[in-house]
Amino acid sequence: MCRFLAWVGEQRYLDELIQEQEQSLVIQSRNALIGKTPINADGFGLAWYSDRGTPCFYKDTHPAWSDANLKQLAHHTRSRLFLAHVRASTGTATSRNNCHPFGFDKWSFMHNGQAGGHDRIRQALDAMIPAQLYGYRMGATESEAIFLIAHGEGLNTDPIGAMERAIGRVETLSRQSGALPYLRFAACWSDGKRVFAARYASDRYAPSLHYRVCKDGIIISSEPLDVDNDDWVEIKPNTAIETEGSSVLVHAFDPSMARNQEKVA
Amino acid sequence: MCRFLAWVGEQRYLDELIQEQEQSLVIQSRNALIGKTPINADGFGLAWYSDRGTPCFYKDTHPAWSDANLKQLAHHTRSRLFLAHVRASTGTATSRNNCHPFGFDKWSFMHNGQAGGHDRIRQALDAMIPAQLYGYRMGATESEAIFLIAHGEGLNTDPIGAMERAIGRVETLSRQSGALPYLRFAACWSDGKRVFAARYASDRYAPSLHYRVCKDGIIISSEPLDVDNDDWVEIKPNTAIETEGSSVLVHAFDPSMARNQEKVA
Amino acid sequence: MCRFLAWVGEQRYLDELIQEQEQSLVIQSRNALIGKTPINADGFGLAWYSDRGTPCFYKDTHPAWSDANLKQLAHHTRSRLFLAHVRASTGTATSRNNCHPFGFDKWSFMHNGQAGGHDRIRQALDAMIPAQLYGYRMGATESEAIFLIAHGEGLNTDPIGAMERAIGRVETLSRQSGALPYLRFAACWSDGKRVFAARYASDRYAPSLHYRVCKDGIIISSEPLDVDNDDWVEIKPNTAIETEGSSVLVHAFDPSMARNQEKVA
Amino acid sequence: MCRFLAWVGEQRYLDELIQEQEQSLVIQSRNALIGKTPINADGFGLAWYSDRGTPCFYKDTHPAWSDANLKQLAHHTRSRLFLAHVRASTGTATSRNNCHPFGFDKWSFMHNGQAGGHDRIRQALDAMIPAQLYGYRMGATESEAIFLIAHGEGLNTDPIGAMERAIGRVETLSRQSGALPYLRFAACWSDGKRVFAARYASDRYAPSLHYRVCKDGIIISSEPLDVDNDDWVEIKPNTAIETEGSSVLVHAFDPSMARNQEKVA
Repeated sequence: MCRFLAWVGEQRYLDELIQEQEQSLVIQSRNALIGKTPINADGFGLAWYSDRGTPCFYKDTHPAWSDANLKQLAHHTRSRLFLAHVRASTGTATSRNNCHPFGFDKWSFMHNGQAGGHDRIRQALDAMIPAQLYGYRMGATESEAIFLIAHGEGLNTDPIGAMERAIGRVETLSRQSGALPYLRFAACWSDGKRVFAARYASDRYAPSLHYRVCKDGIIISSEPLDVDNDDWVEIKPNTAIETEGSSVLVHAFDPSMARNQEKVA
Repeated sequence: MCRFLAWVGEQRYLDELIQEQEQSLVIQSRNALIGKTPINADGFGLAWYSDRGTPCFYKDTHPAWSDANLKQLAHHTRSRLFLAHVRASTGTATSRNNCHPFGFDKWSFMHNGQAGGHDRIRQALDAMIPAQLYGYRMGATESEAIFLIAHGEGLNTDPIGAMERAIGRVETLSRQSGALPYLRFAACWSDGKRVFAARYASDRYAPSLHYRVCKDGIIISSEPLDVDNDDWVEIKPNTAIETEGSSVLVHAFDPSMARNQEKVA
Repeated sequence: MCRFLAWVGEQRYLDELIQEQEQSLVIQSRNALIGKTPINADGFGLAWYSDRGTPCFYKDTHPAWSDANLKQLAHHTRSRLFLAHVRASTGTATSRNNCHPFGFDKWSFMHNGQAGGHDRIRQALDAMIPAQLYGYRMGATESEAIFLIAHGEGLNTDPIGAMERAIGRVETLSRQSGALPYLRFAACWSDGKRVFAARYASDRYAPSLHYRVCKDGIIISSEPLDVDNDDWVEIKPNTAIETEGSSVLVHAFDPSMARNQEKVA
Repeated sequence: MCRFLAWVGEQRYLDELIQEQEQSLVIQSRNALIGKTPINADGFGLAWYSDRGTPCFYKDTHPAWSDANLKQLAHHTRSRLFLAHVRASTGTATSRNNCHPFGFDKWSFMHNGQAGGHDRIRQALDAMIPAQLYGYRMGATESEAIFLIAHGEGLNTDPIGAMERAIGRVETLSRQSGALPYLRFAACWSDGKRVFAARYASDRYAPSLHYRVCKDGIIISSEPLDVDNDDWVEIKPNTAIETEGSSVLVHAFDPSMARNQEKVA
């Protein structure tokens, strides 16, 4: 399990959310309050959108609290849209290539969760990645595979439906050959304009996911960044959200439905 | 392209070969004399056999010349059989998971060379890895894939024939969908008792490979460790060697033959 | 604050103590039970004595639980005398040069504790290091400075008295220009034959330190490696121990006394 | 010896100078054309000025050519003033704390050169650092010491004179207790508005230093970034330059003169 947050709105220094909150992401890397994994110190990553068409990634394998470069970059970088992630490995190596967010073209993606029996289904997962995207498969996580499979499902034109179908396919695979808990999924992805997030699980334990609408933008976060603030809204399981300017659109997110309709790979 | 060496014989401190020779492996990491890549500084790795049944791996992503741990370990570790490798990436990331030697069970393997159009054939290569070994696929190199495919071909019982068949399959794949130069291959592998090495290429440019029989053991090396010593023997293309005690057995190594006989994957 | 352990006795694989105990050092790196710092993940280090005259060091900046090389080395390395340390920085950078154990000649040293107002006294500490040893000053910790100052006080011939005098000098410095808590000190050091350990603080909070005499050797550890075992002995504050074969000699350790008698630097 | 470059002028993406030139800094890290050290792969660093009062530093220990984060950051970061450095260690460890540029307050500094007998004079160098700045001494290089000593000499109000005096003091020290070549110095430093650079040596081998006035700014570089371009001006030994808008002011830089006038430390 991992922790993450995203920001979209007015330009904001990254460290305002990553470092300076009561329950900032860096604090969550040592002491997450929600979920079963208090320590999320197997690497971290940032993706922010600048003037280039693609996001900028900074990822490394140290705990977020001890990385001197992270402190520098988060203090000096302002962006209107960024994603940040701290990792707790569920089995794969602590390697930059396994750190979130992952990127392709204008898209970035980060995930908290797991596919059951990942070791048993990894080769089949890799085979699900569209051939023309396999060159972007850098590491060994199911998260990166899900992201590339979602591209194959049409993420560009149908950002939530494509993710739903990708998750449906991965859950099917896990049910066939994997192990409980099949799939747990909280994720956040962006095309540089909108941020999407979804929450889902095969069982009752969908990883936590919240958002908060501020006056200058929207925060999406694994857990609230300030404990006593009532403005945090929990995203319900089987639900996706989409930011549109300062609004949040809520969608159903039902991979099992998508699964029933899916085309055979 | 990369550089490597192996030792089998009496116990020897690793740094005697890695650091202290006129053209030691660490010197080759800065200034290889043979081949087109003088700098081999995209990580390194050691595998040595101790009293455990499996080899011990130390691998990291810095240049061999600047790694303080490498210097310590090579100075204090003695082994009767070890492999050492310095890497020059042909495209994949500088990551510990892409560093040689690779290991499975009692086996270790290291490679200097490339499969043409690796990006285009990588997914097919991954699909060739036996399902039960896919959990050992850590990185993205064709080298690691070749090693695991060779296990599927029976490396345990037929160490040279299995490698021949694996290379045959990979070369076929590269001819079908890859790009020139299809396959260049100099490699070294061991079960902890014997060391095997082979040299092959689809074209005329098989990567260099030499050995030398010393009074207390055998060195196999990409290039001679001392320039003026006539005792170094060049391993010819299409040839494999196998150490047996203090002797070197020479075998034909003809993946194209193996390819013609290969079972369909 | 940090956690550490040492072994002297029959040859033993390092991972037996570092990985395989109920409350092993790697577990302590995530979840120390004693003391105020449960997470000790700002690097780690090993020093073991082999057939060479000097110890072998393996140190790196990742958490001990996520370092693939550490797992390999600890599994394959056997030694009759080794030190192991997991670090929680009290301010200085997460850098290999700040990781314990530190080494000079045949000696190794590791520390859990702090000197009050370290930033204010660091330059004076550096000036206390004997000139001929300054080339061995690699990092910025007070721990490394204490070790080198102790060498200047005659560690070679008087291993406990020299450490007492060094600590006395550092405590005096901290009282003059530093800040509370002046000095907290639990440490372990070795010449490759004997292991020494001491516990001391300017206040009532000397860092925890224990030992256990086993049938084939002696373990010294920040906290017991198995919670229900009564064989663990707490080392009292103001006390040093020294191993002699399978025996433990107990000495007074009184830096304030030494301080009163100290020669002026 | 090392290689570096600096830019001041219109906002420019860092990778335009670091990656995309015929003889870019990343190419220089593999194959410097001027000077005795073709490989500069013991770490690298960037400092750029953003909207904050202090520069942003990104430094790490890998070769510049293999660092995936460097490629990302240089591609997405634009700045009107930045410094970039690739390191070839002259003895001290490959460690982030030994990577240039160094920073204090609004200032950044990078250096190519060495102080003779550095190991012998390091403790005296450390003692020269003003007490209130010693907390900023992170590593072990003479370069960082020179920078902090220059602050003590009044870098804020007299950027060139203070550096002259600092170099004078360090050269005196090296002459007294060090070894040939006493001092070789090519450096670049900035307060976020102006860039300063100087070239000096105790012998005839002052490290190379050039600048080029472009239509939108000024490049200062160890060696020309394009081999056939006549616009590159060599900075002569015993000379400093200072940028003022799009102009370059040339000053004498004579540490030996400063030395004669220096106040006793």
